[in-house]
Amino acid sequence: MADPKNSESLPVRMEEVVSLCARRGFIFPSSEIYGGINGFWDYGPLGVELKNNLKALWWQRMVRERDDVEGIDSSIIAHPRIWEASGHVEHFSDPMVDCRACKKRFRADQLDDVGACPSREGTSEHDFTDARNFNLMLKTFIGASEDVASTAFLRPETCQSIFADFKRVREAARQQVPFGIAQIGKAFRNEINPRNFTFRSREFEQAELEFFAPPEDREKWFESLLALRLQFHKDLGFPDERLRVRPHADDELAHYANAAADIEFLFPFGWQEIEGIHDRGDWDLRRHTEFAGKDLGVTNDETKERYLPVVIETSVGVDRTCLAILVNGFEEEALENGETRSVLRLHPRVAPIKAAILPLSKKLAEGARKIDQDLRRHWNVFYDASGNIGRRYRRQDEIGTPLCVTYDFDSETDGKVTVRERDSMNQERISCDALVAYLRERLEPEA
Amino acid sequence: MADPKNSESLPVRMEEVVSLCARRGFIFPSSEIYGGINGFWDYGPLGVELKNNLKALWWQRMVRERDDVEGIDSSIIAHPRIWEASGHVEHFSDPMVDCRACKKRFRADQLDDVGACPSREGTSEHDFTDARNFNLMLKTFIGASEDVASTAFLRPETCQSIFADFKRVREAARQQVPFGIAQIGKAFRNEINPRNFTFRSREFEQAELEFFAPPEDREKWFESLLALRLQFHKDLGFPDERLRVRPHADDELAHYANAAADIEFLFPFGWQEIEGIHDRGDWDLRRHTEFAGKDLGVTNDETKERYLPVVIETSVGVDRTCLAILVNGFEEEALENGETRSVLRLHPRVAPIKAAILPLSKKLAEGARKIDQDLRRHWNVFYDASGNIGRRYRRQDEIGTPLCVTYDFDSETDGKVTVRERDSMNQERISCDALVAYLRERLEPEA
Repeated sequence: MADPKNSESLPVRMEEVVSLCARRGFIFPSSEIYGGINGFWDYGPLGVELKNNLKALWWQRMVRERDDVEGIDSSIIAHPRIWEASGHVEHFSDPMVDCRACKKRFRADQLDDVGACPSREGTSEHDFTDARNFNLMLKTFIGASEDVASTAFLRPETCQSIFADFKRVREAARQQVPFGIAQIGKAFRNEINPRNFTFRSREFEQAELEFFAPPEDREKWFESLLALRLQFHKDLGFPDERLRVRPHADDELAHYANAAADIEFLFPFGWQEIEGIHDRGDWDLRRHTEFAGKDLGVTNDETKERYLPVVIETSVGVDRTCLAILVNGFEEEALENGETRSVLRLHPRVAPIKAAILPLSKKLAEGARKIDQDLRRHWNVFYDASGNIGRRYRRQDEIGTPLCVTYDFDSETDGKVTVRERDSMNQERISCDALVAYLRERLEPEA
Repeated sequence: MADPKNSESLPVRMEEVVSLCARRGFIFPSSEIYGGINGFWDYGPLGVELKNNLKALWWQRMVRERDDVEGIDSSIIAHPRIWEASGHVEHFSDPMVDCRACKKRFRADQLDDVGACPSREGTSEHDFTDARNFNLMLKTFIGASEDVASTAFLRPETCQSIFADFKRVREAARQQVPFGIAQIGKAFRNEINPRNFTFRSREFEQAELEFFAPPEDREKWFESLLALRLQFHKDLGFPDERLRVRPHADDELAHYANAAADIEFLFPFGWQEIEGIHDRGDWDLRRHTEFAGKDLGVTNDETKERYLPVVIETSVGVDRTCLAILVNGFEEEALENGETRSVLRLHPRVAPIKAAILPLSKKLAEGARKIDQDLRRHWNVFYDASGNIGRRYRRQDEIGTPLCVTYDFDSETDGKVTVRERDSMNQERISCDALVAYLRERLEPEA
């Protein structure tokens, strides 16, 4: 890839990625046969594997490999008081104006972005109402019927139940500060203007770590968790020139934050946040202590004084990172013979299919199926017997399969297969007995 | 276990399981510090591992190991027309009555179950309104504000988006009937009376396979998928006397179903469904074809005629199965020495922690940590250096850890550790070099 200083110089256009995603079944609009529903997306057979692989990698690194982090999985609908304590009922809103002519509603701070208005003949001709705040939380009703039931919200972020569960988890897991609680899960925001494919949607998945530390260590943990998370994205194969850390200026910090930095990725639509690292101070535990009337403090072992830990948060968008992986890997490559191929350069760890098993002829099914069954016990593999071999390679290139294993007529006698590598297109002849070890070396280089 | 003909003869009481779950961090009420929210539960550090292990096992067996099943992950909120097509807007409701005296609402078909009513002095004294139907779907609003936005629903089942995505997935994955589409995900129902811990809750997780077959093969697929799913539960360790298949009588079949059977598990609160196998006929594809105006049919290869496949569904409750695993594994065991121990006999595949590494003294931390680091690359393991060794064993027994690895002073010189097995409490001296292989044989016997 050339050194892209900005998105205009990128070789990939979003349309190409969106088209590939639909055609090959990575991601497509929810309820597509009904015309879709704005801001909602479905992951298809390849997309769900990609997303699950990414989530499993995050869980492995952030939870399972660490003694000082506990995982949880909390409900999407929680007690409505949680969203009063968190400040979301009061603060989580956008200022909106109505157009008196066309009756449509717009964000007051985005009045240059009113393309959706059919009566538009220049913004100046709009006759807008005064701005009013509209809460972005999705509301529902729990109980026997709307009139008597309590209003509840779909969580707009996964972290608040971590704070509410802090005491229970700390005690059950016998943890002491410093330690963290992590979770992966769905969150919902009633975005007025969902856009950029899955980048800004109304239903999305977050992977969040809330790390609880003594106040005097806040800077140390902020720096080390930021570095850890940046490395995670580099390990996914994002090149340096496509990643940057953008510290928040004082005047853009959220009301609860003492320091914050975004990890940004260069999308075809510009530099955009894929992860946020926030020093949230003791805001959350203090508010829940106050609203729930339960002491969420801990005791300092030496001084025996009670105190509220500060929280360093790492919050990554799972869908955004999937999108970055797809955008980063996608290439229309010009080949030496003058042809082009569409190739998705995915890290083996997140690739939906790790290897394809391709018998050169349908007559070779028995031997090829044996290999398929053997490899299937280790990885998600794919068996494909239809079409000429070049076309079958291309189909795998396009969906990011790192390795193709071709079983030919010689395989029947010499017990060897041809392994072709996606990026280099190099081919190597490997004994079937050594195949699992050969693949493991290439698919799990870190292990 | 004795042969329990009914739940009264079971040795486990729900209170004991619920108490263990909270104390050790498997499952506890959502928003607990706010007094909880009826019908919503959080999974703690051990619970999330148990549930993720169960989901991974289902995915492995039902999707990855099969050529004829594709996975998806669709949005929880879909186009509202989907719920008209599915029949949920019209049919998915309970008949409810209001009590004119106490103003509370009850299910008309459960009027012997009105214990929640404070004014109750015998059911006959209630003055009830006529029964009205209340839809069990949770409603929300998408768009700029409630008045102009469209009403949407949180899905009450995960299968409908499988039907809506049928054509896209079939084409993208180049599948031909017979084949299936599977997904795991959250669903929501506004249950009037959530009960029995996580068994009947308002937010829950389903793992569903919708298998599309030619109409003439419907019985074959119904039988084979029922057998497959029953075997799955047996493989989890559920004994025969605690599992049964209950075919639905003709008069209890759902409006869309041609045949149905429940797989039931014997809980302390009785025989209850943990999975349903349904022959849904062509109801769903026919309705979506009609409501979306898109032909969801396929072509018979031989006759070249178009037809709608029938659907055989397997739908398992993830939370219910987790609960069955906990209930089935729980035992207060009387030991020979007159003491009792609390032990959770979990299958290694779903156990949250596979092995605990226990240094006999804090002086042995270096050597024990080496083993910990080595095993951690393969499994979710736990390092515990505090308390006497007997107490540490009990802590692991109680949460279902299959193996404990004790590192003692001899280990420093002979390079061996003691491996203790949870159920038999047998101990064996194993060389550190052979430890990974020894553990693998016991933790992954099927591989």
